Amino acid sequence: MTAYKKLTEHFKKISHFNHLAAICGWDQAAMMPAGGASARSAAMAELSVHIHKLQTQDSLADWFSEAETKTLPPEDTASLREMKRQWVQANVLPEDLVHAKSMAGSKCEHAWRTQRTNNDWKGFAENWKEVVNLSQHEAQIRAEATGLSPYDAMLDIYEPGTKTEFLTPLFDDIKRWLPELIEQVIEKQSHENLLMPQGIFPATQQKALGHKVMELLQFDFNHGRLDESVHPFCGGVPQDVRLTTRYDETDFIQSLMGTVHETGHARYEQGLPESYAGLPVGEARSMGIHESQSLFFEMQVGRSPSFIHHLAEMTGKQFGKENEPAFASDNFQKLYSRVNKGFIRVDADELTYPAHVILRYEIERDLMNGKISYLDVPELWNEKMQAYLGFSTKGNFKDGCMQDIHWTDGAFGYFPSYTLGAMYAAQFMAAMKKTVDVDAAIRSGNLSPIFNWLSDKIWSKGSLLTTDELVKKATDEALNPTFFKAHLESRYLK
Amino acid sequence: MTAYKKLTEHFKKISHFNHLAAICGWDQAAMMPAGGASARSAAMAELSVHIHKLQTQDSLADWFSEAETKTLPPEDTASLREMKRQWVQANVLPEDLVHAKSMAGSKCEHAWRTQRTNNDWKGFAENWKEVVNLSQHEAQIRAEATGLSPYDAMLDIYEPGTKTEFLTPLFDDIKRWLPELIEQVIEKQSHENLLMPQGIFPATQQKALGHKVMELLQFDFNHGRLDESVHPFCGGVPQDVRLTTRYDETDFIQSLMGTVHETGHARYEQGLPESYAGLPVGEARSMGIHESQSLFFEMQVGRSPSFIHHLAEMTGKQFGKENEPAFASDNFQKLYSRVNKGFIRVDADELTYPAHVILRYEIERDLMNGKISYLDVPELWNEKMQAYLGFSTKGNFKDGCMQDIHWTDGAFGYFPSYTLGAMYAAQFMAAMKKTVDVDAAIRSGNLSPIFNWLSDKIWSKGSLLTTDELVKKATDEALNPTFFKAHLESRYLK
Ligand SMILES: [Zn+2]
Ligand SMILES: [Zn+2]
Repeated sequence: MTAYKKLTEHFKKISHFNHLAAICGWDQAAMMPAGGASARSAAMAELSVHIHKLQTQDSLADWFSEAETKTLPPEDTASLREMKRQWVQANVLPEDLVHAKSMAGSKCEHAWRTQRTNNDWKGFAENWKEVVNLSQHEAQIRAEATGLSPYDAMLDIYEPGTKTEFLTPLFDDIKRWLPELIEQVIEKQSHENLLMPQGIFPATQQKALGHKVMELLQFDFNHGRLDESVHPFCGGVPQDVRLTTRYDETDFIQSLMGTVHETGHARYEQGLPESYAGLPVGEARSMGIHESQSLFFEMQVGRSPSFIHHLAEMTGKQFGKENEPAFASDNFQKLYSRVNKGFIRVDADELTYPAHVILRYEIERDLMNGKISYLDVPELWNEKMQAYLGFSTKGNFKDGCMQDIHWTDGAFGYFPSYTLGAMYAAQFMAAMKKTVDVDAAIRSGNLSPIFNWLSDKIWSKGSLLTTDELVKKATDEALNPTFFKAHLESRYLK
Repeated sequence: MTAYKKLTEHFKKISHFNHLAAICGWDQAAMMPAGGASARSAAMAELSVHIHKLQTQDSLADWFSEAETKTLPPEDTASLREMKRQWVQANVLPEDLVHAKSMAGSKCEHAWRTQRTNNDWKGFAENWKEVVNLSQHEAQIRAEATGLSPYDAMLDIYEPGTKTEFLTPLFDDIKRWLPELIEQVIEKQSHENLLMPQGIFPATQQKALGHKVMELLQFDFNHGRLDESVHPFCGGVPQDVRLTTRYDETDFIQSLMGTVHETGHARYEQGLPESYAGLPVGEARSMGIHESQSLFFEMQVGRSPSFIHHLAEMTGKQFGKENEPAFASDNFQKLYSRVNKGFIRVDADELTYPAHVILRYEIERDLMNGKISYLDVPELWNEKMQAYLGFSTKGNFKDGCMQDIHWTDGAFGYFPSYTLGAMYAAQFMAAMKKTVDVDAAIRSGNLSPIFNWLSDKIWSKGSLLTTDELVKKATDEALNPTFFKAHLESRYLK
């Protein structure tokens, strides 16, 4: 057997164990009774150890060396590149650092759950210091291994190939026009009349509605299902995608659009190339591209007037409120494009979201590159919040730098994916509109032309192309923030 | 680390992978969409290979040899014995035989699904020949390894320590009085007036009712849940028991009692000794003892007049039919103790069930011991069916020897567990009644005294004792079929 073939078999074997981890992880969040937790944790930990052992097995180094001397067909070259990438990620850090970071992260996150409520920055900072230290150490090691700057090396985990020198100007561009745009939109919307749907909306009916919306979005129920969990997510495996949502019986608005969002993630997974199932090259390209698909569903399709029209109609029918003014299409449109400035990222709307992300990007970049100390974070947060959204977070840590879970366990480099996703989504839509009558497709209720384009350009590509190649092939140019700007202006100022 | 300790750690490690197999197996039956099947099969197969590798790891033989030279405390001795037992089971067969049997079994079972419908004995026999051959070969190897007869060696997989020389007289005893008793009861019941509950009983309401009944039976919902699957079962792990049932919206009768039955299995699992979690000695004693618990719940408690009274009341209330005569307690009692002779084991009632089992026992025993050929089976079936239940199955293979799935994939030795379970259950009840006012407990709605007895005598013992020791300690004597006979007479003739 050739070394390339051996690698292929080995990575497929790993994918089978990842399959079990994905299903049991979904079960843990969506099905497991509380009393099952400790036995499950032990089983999952054992599985992680086993997967790590497979990923770091000695023979892999030899197989890679040998395979890299051979000339392979282009798709196999891509497959080898992606196996190598995962292998490097799994092997680059010394095990004691991985362990120490995981311990420090768990400790910090656990305490954070009460410290945040108590606005206890001092207590938090004590634990967080260690998380930042170890993450800086991690970034250093990754930087040496890749030849990247420390922060870029962290970014590379989530966004392979995306660098600060590319991101900073992109985000600087957004910073130039976003704060002004936000003010204009808020001023414009202040004259609008908005009706909140009133009533009790039973979870079973919300679920039925969610199913109908997923059908409209052509979610494949033969290869996936919809359930409930406290924190909605899209899990499982491409052949069996497990999507979750959460229902608030007094407010279906967020949950309904949350289902649209997660369905975007899910269809990307369901659309990955079957011929590369179980191989890294058959996986989603990056977190940013993943988010581009969920945001394409949520922001580009989901909040478009024609789709909102379907949503309003389906919702009115489901709850027997077709004739209430709050369920009218134009009111739904207003509900789903309302802009509100606030402290909290997860509650932010499409327009203010990038401000939250850029703030975090700038801080985590300088933190990983050793330009600032963890002690500087609250003050920097306050300054940037004032500049981008006009709020002070002085002394208000819980609504400031202590609000997110990501940093508590050292996931530095993840935040940019959210806004990259939003920008990619806008650019994909602009490109798609050159050949597809998107609005007509949505209006007709048969969205196939849209999904065919996404499948063709994005989903079926898996990780065969780099992110940059993928975007250029799909849209004829590299990521360009003008599409995002044009999209926001057209939606919120028109 | 001592060899005993090394074994303990190793078996706990195996149990973590078994945990994943149990949860993913449950998911496959209760949650997974059809399109997920092939990826799941591949993942489960990989997991099986890994578990088998752990079970057959070379170092185990040395550890056992070393551990067996040491004097251990009694509980550790039992733990070592049970680890050894599982290790021998996993190592006794050559891998090519295991593989060949699994292939032949899958082939036979797959074809059987249509052959049975078509009453195609000839086609079936062609595949089954190989399954029987390989099973005889397996029995031979197991016999040599254990010093037992071939059939006893197969029986030992499911009922450790139970032998033909013990079983045959037991079943002969039942054969002497059962056919006559069946006739008497059918004659007696032919004068009864029975009302079938009429209506549509929505699955959601049946589920709610099932939950209430499980609460009455003190199922621990913090360590388990109830779902639906085509073939009801009790799966998961002791810390998180996954129980399933199936609803027929025109008939809740079977499903409701099915839930009681599975809850018995579940409470046994939930009640296993926590201090031995993950070790063979912490597992259920045998299939027969497992069935004794489900049948204790179903037959001893569940069909007792006081419990039926609760059931009738809860059911009437659930469906808003408290005042219909079909939902009266005495009618429910009749419904749940109706005796009908029939061809099919899985449809059989408490009284006729042993006839189906004994017939199978006698045939599979002689088949494994090489006294008969697979070609003799239909004729023997017909003869025994005539003798025990008075039916001819001449030419009617599909309702005769082709009705069960067990033999199609070579699970010879399993059938006796069903009737052993029924006999153990009757004996446990007789013993319990010496110290517990069972009827008063059921009537009061607080069944704790019953469960405390079971927990104390059976559940908490795991596999610390042999089956024989367990039964003697709990009831002061070895298995004695007179309790079963007395139970049947008192229920059906009184
Ligand atoms: Zn998302
Ligand atoms: Zn059972």
